[in-house]
Amino acid sequence: MTRIALDVMGGDFAPAATVAGAVEAMRAHDLRPVLVGDKQRIAEELAKLHVGTEEFEIVAAPSVVEMNEQPASALRQKRDSSIIVAAELLKEGRADALISVGNTGATMAAGVLVIGRSEGVIRPAMAGLLPSNTGRVLLLDIGANADCTPAELVQFAIMGSIYARRIVGVDDPRVGLLNVGEEPVKGSRLYRDAHELLDGSPVNFVGNLEGVDLFSGEFDVVVCDGFTGNVAIKLMEGVGDFALGRIRQDVRSSPLAILGAFLMRPTLRSLKRTFDYAEWGGAPLLGVNGLVLIGHGRSDARAVANGVRAAQAALDVGLVEEMAAGLKAAAETA
Amino acid sequence: MTRIALDVMGGDFAPAATVAGAVEAMRAHDLRPVLVGDKQRIAEELAKLHVGTEEFEIVAAPSVVEMNEQPASALRQKRDSSIIVAAELLKEGRADALISVGNTGATMAAGVLVIGRSEGVIRPAMAGLLPSNTGRVLLLDIGANADCTPAELVQFAIMGSIYARRIVGVDDPRVGLLNVGEEPVKGSRLYRDAHELLDGSPVNFVGNLEGVDLFSGEFDVVVCDGFTGNVAIKLMEGVGDFALGRIRQDVRSSPLAILGAFLMRPTLRSLKRTFDYAEWGGAPLLGVNGLVLIGHGRSDARAVANGVRAAQAALDVGLVEEMAAGLKAAAETA
Repeated sequence: MTRIALDVMGGDFAPAATVAGAVEAMRAHDLRPVLVGDKQRIAEELAKLHVGTEEFEIVAAPSVVEMNEQPASALRQKRDSSIIVAAELLKEGRADALISVGNTGATMAAGVLVIGRSEGVIRPAMAGLLPSNTGRVLLLDIGANADCTPAELVQFAIMGSIYARRIVGVDDPRVGLLNVGEEPVKGSRLYRDAHELLDGSPVNFVGNLEGVDLFSGEFDVVVCDGFTGNVAIKLMEGVGDFALGRIRQDVRSSPLAILGAFLMRPTLRSLKRTFDYAEWGGAPLLGVNGLVLIGHGRSDARAVANGVRAAQAALDVGLVEEMAAGLKAAAETA
Repeated sequence: MTRIALDVMGGDFAPAATVAGAVEAMRAHDLRPVLVGDKQRIAEELAKLHVGTEEFEIVAAPSVVEMNEQPASALRQKRDSSIIVAAELLKEGRADALISVGNTGATMAAGVLVIGRSEGVIRPAMAGLLPSNTGRVLLLDIGANADCTPAELVQFAIMGSIYARRIVGVDDPRVGLLNVGEEPVKGSRLYRDAHELLDGSPVNFVGNLEGVDLFSGEFDVVVCDGFTGNVAIKLMEGVGDFALGRIRQDVRSSPLAILGAFLMRPTLRSLKRTFDYAEWGGAPLLGVNGLVLIGHGRSDARAVANGVRAAQAALDVGLVEEMAAGLKAAAETA
């Protein structure tokens, strides 16, 4: 049986939402994550849901890296924090996957410092699989690295291509660079330099794209720095929320619109899910020696349960092994 | 009568779309922009629309800064380009406003080099007025400066606050910094430093916000670098396009959804307009000594006509005079 370590103490609504998410994962998906965190508080949350502590394996981790802490120094000081203890379970082979909806920087740092990077990887990247007009598009980095170098963007392109080829099943993934214009001279210095490097890289680099073309179906992998990517996915969520709010408001003022909204409900719901980062259930951190999923800080119980399910799905397709094999092959042909 | 100079040669579909936009501005809004560009080609485009050249004032500018040119060097070499000639009209008082849907960097450079910055302004910024749950939110910079310093972001906050106070009519505008988390330590180095500077600045700085909160109504002005801002507004457009495409697709497969979409048509159309940057008709460049509007490169005739109308509206509220007075007052109290 696979073992998925859940960082129970991380996230805006932890430990209530994370424990409730674990219970939902058990009830809805028959998955029982290993709960890593404060034993007393986990027991209290389980009791509220009328679930006995014997239902889950619980690993004690008394402290927590708060959302507002600087990741590197927090990790040095808090060796007994839930994210470090969970990462050590993965490192030692006592867990097969780790999921956290806590401090993204801390999870990224735990991935690098405790679990370790895959050979040749400078910085791991968070990847989000979005829908496109013709299939799927992988956007990375969506939040692991706020400051990036051009060489790191090239490596994101390589890791993204491996993911698209081996996990999504695209033969020769088309890679785009998220930018403010299609011309190579467009963008900040980072993006102008990255464009040049990507042009000479082994990936199938198609060129720059603007945000409006992200869903066009012309790209399988889209690369950006983690600041831009994180702003982007949270903005999608904002646009979706705003649009649904506006629809609800309009609906109140017109009986015909009420009917219209009712008839379109399945479509609107599916769109909401598409653009809601919390619904994805965690984005994989590519380039570390283990399966690490990072979820939205605002994740509720359902999002946490989705995350546990997403971790199981990534284990099922052998994401980490496929990435490692792909990186090895890329290094050999380079 | 006010005179609005239109850079006819700039834009992905120029001069056809720009000339057609001028004709639409005349027919729909009773506004006649001054057409700046290649006289021969303007005459040809007007002829296609059965409009005589005597209907518009035409100012000759034989060359054009193409979308893929480096702005600074192009402007040095092409003194007779449409954007330079149009900027000179504004500088010399022979036009009251300038609108271009061409190379954004070139329009920005023409604004700085030909028209000149307002006193004390380091870099002008493009501002976009978006809807929010409670009113409006001004996002800047949305594309004038791909690389920014923390001090420039503070100045964007000052200019945005002046705009919100004097043009939108908000008493004490709440300023937010677009970021990847609410905590001050979040984000790239630029954003961490900008957060600190904004904290000690005269604007009413509320703190960081994530993309999901852009439309929350908790902020009147949201500041970011021009790369992030430009990616953001074009992504909004992409999300809108994708969502409508998905709705159209779903509708085809279900008669009930056809009815639903029909009943909701006004709402869906208004949402599309809200998130389509081309529909805005040009974003003002704040911090230059004249009214400069920069439109979407893909603007069609209607978007260009909207731009002419937006320029007239900005002239009517005295945007440039209000910004200058606001900047002067800010400098005196600093």
